[in-house]
Amino acid sequence: MPELRRDPVVGRWVIISTERSRRPSDFASISARPTSAGPCAFCGGQEARTPDEILAVRGPGSAPNGPGWTIRVVPNKFPALRIEGDIEPSGEGLYDRMNGVGAHEVIVESPEHAASLASLPEAHMAAVLGAWRDRMVDLQKDSRFEYVSVFKNHGEDAGASLEHPHSQLIATPIVPMTVEQELEGALRHFRIKKRCIWCDILRQEMQAKVRGLGRLVLGEEGFVALSPYAPRFPFETWILPEGHRSNYEELDGPGLLALARLLGELLRRIGRVLDDPPWNLTLHSAPLKTPTLDHFHWHLEITPRLTRMAGFEWGTGFFINPTPPEEAARYLREEVPRAP
Amino acid sequence: MPELRRDPVVGRWVIISTERSRRPSDFASISARPTSAGPCAFCGGQEARTPDEILAVRGPGSAPNGPGWTIRVVPNKFPALRIEGDIEPSGEGLYDRMNGVGAHEVIVESPEHAASLASLPEAHMAAVLGAWRDRMVDLQKDSRFEYVSVFKNHGEDAGASLEHPHSQLIATPIVPMTVEQELEGALRHFRIKKRCIWCDILRQEMQAKVRGLGRLVLGEEGFVALSPYAPRFPFETWILPEGHRSNYEELDGPGLLALARLLGELLRRIGRVLDDPPWNLTLHSAPLKTPTLDHFHWHLEITPRLTRMAGFEWGTGFFINPTPPEEAARYLREEVPRAP
Repeated sequence: MPELRRDPVVGRWVIISTERSRRPSDFASISARPTSAGPCAFCGGQEARTPDEILAVRGPGSAPNGPGWTIRVVPNKFPALRIEGDIEPSGEGLYDRMNGVGAHEVIVESPEHAASLASLPEAHMAAVLGAWRDRMVDLQKDSRFEYVSVFKNHGEDAGASLEHPHSQLIATPIVPMTVEQELEGALRHFRIKKRCIWCDILRQEMQAKVRGLGRLVLGEEGFVALSPYAPRFPFETWILPEGHRSNYEELDGPGLLALARLLGELLRRIGRVLDDPPWNLTLHSAPLKTPTLDHFHWHLEITPRLTRMAGFEWGTGFFINPTPPEEAARYLREEVPRAP
Repeated sequence: MPELRRDPVVGRWVIISTERSRRPSDFASISARPTSAGPCAFCGGQEARTPDEILAVRGPGSAPNGPGWTIRVVPNKFPALRIEGDIEPSGEGLYDRMNGVGAHEVIVESPEHAASLASLPEAHMAAVLGAWRDRMVDLQKDSRFEYVSVFKNHGEDAGASLEHPHSQLIATPIVPMTVEQELEGALRHFRIKKRCIWCDILRQEMQAKVRGLGRLVLGEEGFVALSPYAPRFPFETWILPEGHRSNYEELDGPGLLALARLLGELLRRIGRVLDDPPWNLTLHSAPLKTPTLDHFHWHLEITPRLTRMAGFEWGTGFFINPTPPEEAARYLREEVPRAP
């Protein structure tokens, strides 16, 4: 059984994933991943090679776990957490642990191995974003879970272990530390000012734009893409709803379509400006089971992986970013072509 | 001028390092680093190729910035922060910034290109650890600096951009977020219990050892190496002084020698068990300008880089670690040889 363990000093929870247990000699094999020929388990027609689907977008008359789908959600075959069992929190002197209970699902974004999220037709991409939403709504019913993390790794250097376009979600009995820190910072701001800090950020960025100093990249139909003021990584970009919304899962059909249009355009620009770099995408939404929050604003963080993390970043939490966000925003906005 | 910028939500500071400014087309060249033949700028006899030395351990009669040294500390030629100027904190609406003022130094650990910290003779390694200390003591005199981060990247996958054995330090006008979080967590513990949390951890680990369940790896002459209860990474190992000490820079000669013995033995074991993996080392010591702290305990964190960070880790601050620390400790303690 995997285990959740809490660092007693900083309160960070770690998943000790015993199902994937690795002896020293297993680590070398990571880099020597074979690139197999032929269709992979996520390809159309290969449905029998995955666990049974949890959700699918299918053509009329097609049967579950057979071909004829455009999007398929299946349990991860090598899950970091296990879906069965109770969390059973317990202590061991200074230390806190609980069972590693959670859901780990794969959203296969297309039956085509060579497709990519950025190049899917708008409606198809909106359906991927809708599958994220629908799985969040469903997992919310499980009383053991406090949070659903949705994320996507694009490219091997971003941690993608399979080429076939897919995103993932992990439901956890704990609100992740990063989200807790955002909640705390935002609540501090709200208590003093009675305003959402991300709404304030959007307002300030809009004003900066008028003065020609913007970090705004794109904005239309109720969503905004911007380079944050203090980005950890070159070309880090956030997408937020322009109006205040704390819960991603409340997005409706037109909202999904508008978000798909903006995200698609942004990903294609990142691909062109940076020559298809590896990137990670993570969704930050309010924790499950909370009512709508006045101080939290859901957002997507897209971080191209262009620089390497080293001892300084690990040891300090400081990040060294060689590209000012104003420049990154300008490149993405004006789409200055990559030098040959 | 580089700039320090604060994220208004979570309070994380980021270095926007304009001296290294990168356009989109510059990123591709990172991976295509030429491995030059011939001596590098850190090799003995190449002293003219670095900025003037700040500190050196030299044989009798040898002149500064010439050959005849065993350890040399020089300014980083491409510093993340600049040594000249005032920090000039200022605001911009919601945002906070200051000038990117700081020291960025390289500790060249040996004139031999092919040497490695782990295989240096004990006294030589103690002198490296002493150079860290001496630079901290000296930089403490500069009223602009609040913290000195000492770190080492071993191997390209750990972020080392030069092969020649070296460590680095960065002095900053801000206490890094990671250290702040440790200070806060430790103070919370101390306020309730009147005890240092790391002293408590050491006590609990010693008792677990008696019951044969230990996460202790090595311990002798006043220092202990252990696998922490909730490690982020496989084979993450911490070294702490057995007695309570908050400030690394108070280490004396015998202390440096004992630490060198333990660190050397640990690094050699990590090298043998994991087949010379890339790793990072970071020193966590109390901030400059604080008196000795009852609630903070200095320590070294050594983290082999065996797993890849991906969207889930970035988005959540959760880490998935496939190797339970009890197993990692057993491998390092018993030095179970790597399977062929």
